[in-house]
Amino acid sequence: MKCVAALTVTFAIASPAQAEEISASSPDGNIVLTVSDEGGHASYSVSYDGKEAVSTSRLGMLFRDHHGFEDGLSIAGSATASHDATWEQPWGERRTVRDSHEELSVTFAAEEGPARQITVRFRVFDTGVGFRYELADQDAFQGPIAITDELTQFSIGDKADAWWTPSRQFNRYEYIYRTGKAGVVDDAHTPVTFRKENGVHVSIHEAALVDYSAMSLLALRPGSFEAALRPGSDGVKVHTVAPFKSPWRTIQIAPDAVGLINSDIILNLNEPNKLGDVSWVEPGKYVGVWWEMHIRDRTWGFNGGNDGLHGANNADVIRHIDFAAKHGFKGVLVEGWNIGWDGDWFNNGALFSFTETYPDFDLPMLSEHAAERGVRLIGHHETSGNVANYEAQMSDAFALYQANGIREVKTGYVADAGDIVRYDDNGVKQYEWHDSQFMVGHHLRVVEEAAKHRISINAHEPVKDTGLRRTYPNWMTREGARGMEFNAWGTPPNPPEHISILAFTRMLSGPMDFTPGIFDLRPNEKPPLREDMQRGDPSNRPQTTLAKQLALYVVLYSPLQMAADLPENYEARMDAFQFIKDVEADWEESVAVAGKVGEYVAIARKGRAGGEWFLGAVTDEEERVIEIPLTFLETGKSYTAQVYRDGPHAHWDTNPYDIVIEETDVKGGGVVVAKLAPSGGIAVRFIAKN
Amino acid sequence: MKCVAALTVTFAIASPAQAEEISASSPDGNIVLTVSDEGGHASYSVSYDGKEAVSTSRLGMLFRDHHGFEDGLSIAGSATASHDATWEQPWGERRTVRDSHEELSVTFAAEEGPARQITVRFRVFDTGVGFRYELADQDAFQGPIAITDELTQFSIGDKADAWWTPSRQFNRYEYIYRTGKAGVVDDAHTPVTFRKENGVHVSIHEAALVDYSAMSLLALRPGSFEAALRPGSDGVKVHTVAPFKSPWRTIQIAPDAVGLINSDIILNLNEPNKLGDVSWVEPGKYVGVWWEMHIRDRTWGFNGGNDGLHGANNADVIRHIDFAAKHGFKGVLVEGWNIGWDGDWFNNGALFSFTETYPDFDLPMLSEHAAERGVRLIGHHETSGNVANYEAQMSDAFALYQANGIREVKTGYVADAGDIVRYDDNGVKQYEWHDSQFMVGHHLRVVEEAAKHRISINAHEPVKDTGLRRTYPNWMTREGARGMEFNAWGTPPNPPEHISILAFTRMLSGPMDFTPGIFDLRPNEKPPLREDMQRGDPSNRPQTTLAKQLALYVVLYSPLQMAADLPENYEARMDAFQFIKDVEADWEESVAVAGKVGEYVAIARKGRAGGEWFLGAVTDEEERVIEIPLTFLETGKSYTAQVYRDGPHAHWDTNPYDIVIEETDVKGGGVVVAKLAPSGGIAVRFIAKN
Repeated sequence: MKCVAALTVTFAIASPAQAEEISASSPDGNIVLTVSDEGGHASYSVSYDGKEAVSTSRLGMLFRDHHGFEDGLSIAGSATASHDATWEQPWGERRTVRDSHEELSVTFAAEEGPARQITVRFRVFDTGVGFRYELADQDAFQGPIAITDELTQFSIGDKADAWWTPSRQFNRYEYIYRTGKAGVVDDAHTPVTFRKENGVHVSIHEAALVDYSAMSLLALRPGSFEAALRPGSDGVKVHTVAPFKSPWRTIQIAPDAVGLINSDIILNLNEPNKLGDVSWVEPGKYVGVWWEMHIRDRTWGFNGGNDGLHGANNADVIRHIDFAAKHGFKGVLVEGWNIGWDGDWFNNGALFSFTETYPDFDLPMLSEHAAERGVRLIGHHETSGNVANYEAQMSDAFALYQANGIREVKTGYVADAGDIVRYDDNGVKQYEWHDSQFMVGHHLRVVEEAAKHRISINAHEPVKDTGLRRTYPNWMTREGARGMEFNAWGTPPNPPEHISILAFTRMLSGPMDFTPGIFDLRPNEKPPLREDMQRGDPSNRPQTTLAKQLALYVVLYSPLQMAADLPENYEARMDAFQFIKDVEADWEESVAVAGKVGEYVAIARKGRAGGEWFLGAVTDEEERVIEIPLTFLETGKSYTAQVYRDGPHAHWDTNPYDIVIEETDVKGGGVVVAKLAPSGGIAVRFIAKN
Repeated sequence: MKCVAALTVTFAIASPAQAEEISASSPDGNIVLTVSDEGGHASYSVSYDGKEAVSTSRLGMLFRDHHGFEDGLSIAGSATASHDATWEQPWGERRTVRDSHEELSVTFAAEEGPARQITVRFRVFDTGVGFRYELADQDAFQGPIAITDELTQFSIGDKADAWWTPSRQFNRYEYIYRTGKAGVVDDAHTPVTFRKENGVHVSIHEAALVDYSAMSLLALRPGSFEAALRPGSDGVKVHTVAPFKSPWRTIQIAPDAVGLINSDIILNLNEPNKLGDVSWVEPGKYVGVWWEMHIRDRTWGFNGGNDGLHGANNADVIRHIDFAAKHGFKGVLVEGWNIGWDGDWFNNGALFSFTETYPDFDLPMLSEHAAERGVRLIGHHETSGNVANYEAQMSDAFALYQANGIREVKTGYVADAGDIVRYDDNGVKQYEWHDSQFMVGHHLRVVEEAAKHRISINAHEPVKDTGLRRTYPNWMTREGARGMEFNAWGTPPNPPEHISILAFTRMLSGPMDFTPGIFDLRPNEKPPLREDMQRGDPSNRPQTTLAKQLALYVVLYSPLQMAADLPENYEARMDAFQFIKDVEADWEESVAVAGKVGEYVAIARKGRAGGEWFLGAVTDEEERVIEIPLTFLETGKSYTAQVYRDGPHAHWDTNPYDIVIEETDVKGGGVVVAKLAPSGGIAVRFIAKN
């Protein structure tokens, strides 16, 4: 016999007691949350403007050694509260953030087994809903608690459009985004974005991921998902004790695609700054010794110093410092400066020393050379996933950098998913996922240790962003998706639609160090410089126009924003480079103006330092004409628009360099009509007149 | 920084000691296995006829509380053996099975941490390789052992063609097979079948899955897979103690598709019959009260007995018994006979009683009515995944059936994957996967308890078959893939290519109770008989021709083979029904004659009782003309071939009933040229002349 539930001939058993249902609405009334104990199950549903956003979905939690919360639940109490306040970001996509929400906390009691209760706290914003579990200290939960399953469900419907990356594969978060019906999504990292048949846009993610493991989604049935918590090396999802609070599960909801971007609920669901004075956290743009290794012109390793291929050598770093100083960049990232790169370092991070430089890299001399020119080096700690080795050295490593005036460190965890190394109390080597409870803790240990040294962190191969930059403002940016380097050696490179999806998925979680600005858009067909330097596919190149590369500086927010190409490639195109010199990396305000998920997006941002507005828009492989309303500018006011747009013959594949750079006059409240070439873009700087 | 290993500039570190490499070959010399400790890693590779089958792949195992086997390994010893013997199956696809292999056991010692060793025992057959881990009792492994990861890898290559179902989703094994390059396989149940660019066919599975959790494959990188053991509810993959042996990991290898089918390595890697006399295990064909519920003419539930829709009522069962007796079927399955179906039973198996019948089902009377006509009832135990409820009752349940002359029981575990219910020692409800160590144990507990009552098991929603029918011959058949019922209500129904993939994937593991023989091939557009009887898509129907339905009886092996349609539908087409009456369900010999994975397959089998050969061939959605060499017949001997073939206008969609039934003369060693309609087939019975 076999049957699926949806087709079963069922006769509902009446609930023993009358089911209770409680609702709460967003301040503007558009979003309505309903919480229920119907059938003895804790459940919720969410609508937007009377249309279904998330249909009835279960809540609950199971434990290894304790009776859980699943069946036989009833609402034992509830409480409501209203909140409306603003707070200021030390840096960010906007200075002032408004946190306006209605709060509903519902306590569920279990009817069978030991007396026990769990509270689900909901916050309903105009742009979505957040909720978390809170388990109070109680008799039924003494001693260690092992969470084996969180039963949180998200019922979206199988016919919604979905954009996602798989969550259970080797390459962490670094997959080409998949597009398809929600019914074919097996498992997905968050943020995962859906567009329902009724037009409502929904994106699922989480906020304030602390001392818990990351949530991904696993299909329970087509289009209906359950929270999948990443297990630790012992298989348990989360080890904790009562009282505890889960991270917030977030459901961003909007009637259109850009509404998802124009939401601050993830930041609002994080705790305020815990670090106090963070004036030492400095957003800005940087260059670096980086792309030259990815395109195989140079090596991270020293190779005995005999072949002249080591990138992080004094002369080359000085050249980068001087270039940065000349063009107004504040930082110079140097990778491959420390001992450990010459072996088979992948999955072998014990090779790395974080305090010993290669002989051709003079850290004090270079730091001083930089300081004299108003530039700082940016540090680099590649762990190759050996967290044990890194944690043993990191205090000394940060101290060394601090002594040399370094204020930002890029960390790296290049290892397959599930291959993070630690040693347990018995000295047994254990492997962890990049987003397990252990790694969630590790990243915060790094951020807190770095803060002691007034250093900010830019984590690559990280755990995903859940808005912790609010609480720890020195956790500035991170990777966590396919970045530019995939265009050097990825198989295949990032497709033309990549940015148009990223903006509505990964970027909802927070800043990304994508490292934009590649100006040499040709395939890298040079033969390798040394026989053992393997190359990616020689046809690889960024699949964008030049104008799109510029637009990325506005579309993809990062408070540390790289100009990733080689200095000589910028010097060859100083006209286009001017936009990168002008654009800011820290913002007074940001607004997503237009877009459709996977097709195009236009975002405007107002610089904090100069007060000027910048606009960036990009398209996927389709050429398109878009209208960008200049509602962000002061209505009626005149501006000079410095425009960097695709030329008439531009095409990412056949003619990526065709760009028109021109000045034109616009008025606030007007409209810019922009023709974007296939995988093209437009970047604009607005200078107010008078 | 980010890089993938394949592109890393690496400088291999020389191994401290000289690496050792040991090889073994299949008896015919075509398959060469190489085992190595190169780089301190246990690894193996397999070639076929000098061509790569599995490239260098790691071996190893990790534990929660013990130092594992991963790095720093060296070969401490090895041993070889040759084996060539035959053994007899009490029932099966062939009577005599030859087990000819070369054995190589290699012991790896760990150089760091506590002294410890693990042995990998390989067996190299002409049709593939099996290997298992053996951990001896030793100082380093005292007390309970928790396996957290098995590092077994299978490096196939991303460009191989692959046929698979996903392994981590809600619907157990019941997915439409996916076809694509191995590089896009994220996770897969076994058997998973690959066709490499060099033409070598490889299928990965396991044998003798006992007291361990099931293995699926998880992509480590595109086309390179690692064993993923199903975790238990506490997250640990396997709880065990030393000494222990893992199941055999099997790699079937052949130069062509049918070579995969013509392999007995999975049976050969199982232990001999443990049950002794199994003369009470009786292969045969059956009908049943089953399809009428799936097409919503009847209900499993009793519904108070007022609406006349309960399928398992005395009158209807008698009608089936009489039909079975008249046409030579040995069994009558009755589902919905016992109390529990009237509630919302899905995921709520505690409702079921396995000893209490509905009032309109008189078990002793029906059993006697059947016995008088040489027929037996076939029992049914649907657990809805509540194993706790079933284990508490199963001894009484089997005793009841035994007392009524019942010799086979179909079990069912209709519950979402991961939703099997048990209670631990603390009374805490725990959820298990269908293929976890707990369920692997449960199924054997059922089979052993059933054997005490001389009952055989046909498990639906089972753990996958790994050849345990050799050891427990009363575990006759099972489901474990999408069966016929998906054509009643599946979304979508099984596609035309389904059987052409099943034959080269699921069927490699063992018999399947697919329940073929639906003669009413029209969409079931009748309105539901009661308002609350939901229906599947009314356009659903088997997407085959009538001739293909007949061919299934030969193509899909099951020692219990159902004629699944309603008696009246057979009575309407007695000419075609004759083949189902004639075909056997137990075989002297079987041979896959021709086929390509996913396209078509032709299989011939010789009946054990009558000694006649039967042939079945099916195609996917493509019409094709195939040549079937009659090499299985005695060369030069004349036969009357009773042919059931697609008519000239047959097409599964537009003209499924166009069938030609004819007799023709053929000679052994000749060729049958068969034209198969789109999703068509051919079924042939060969009667030797003189």
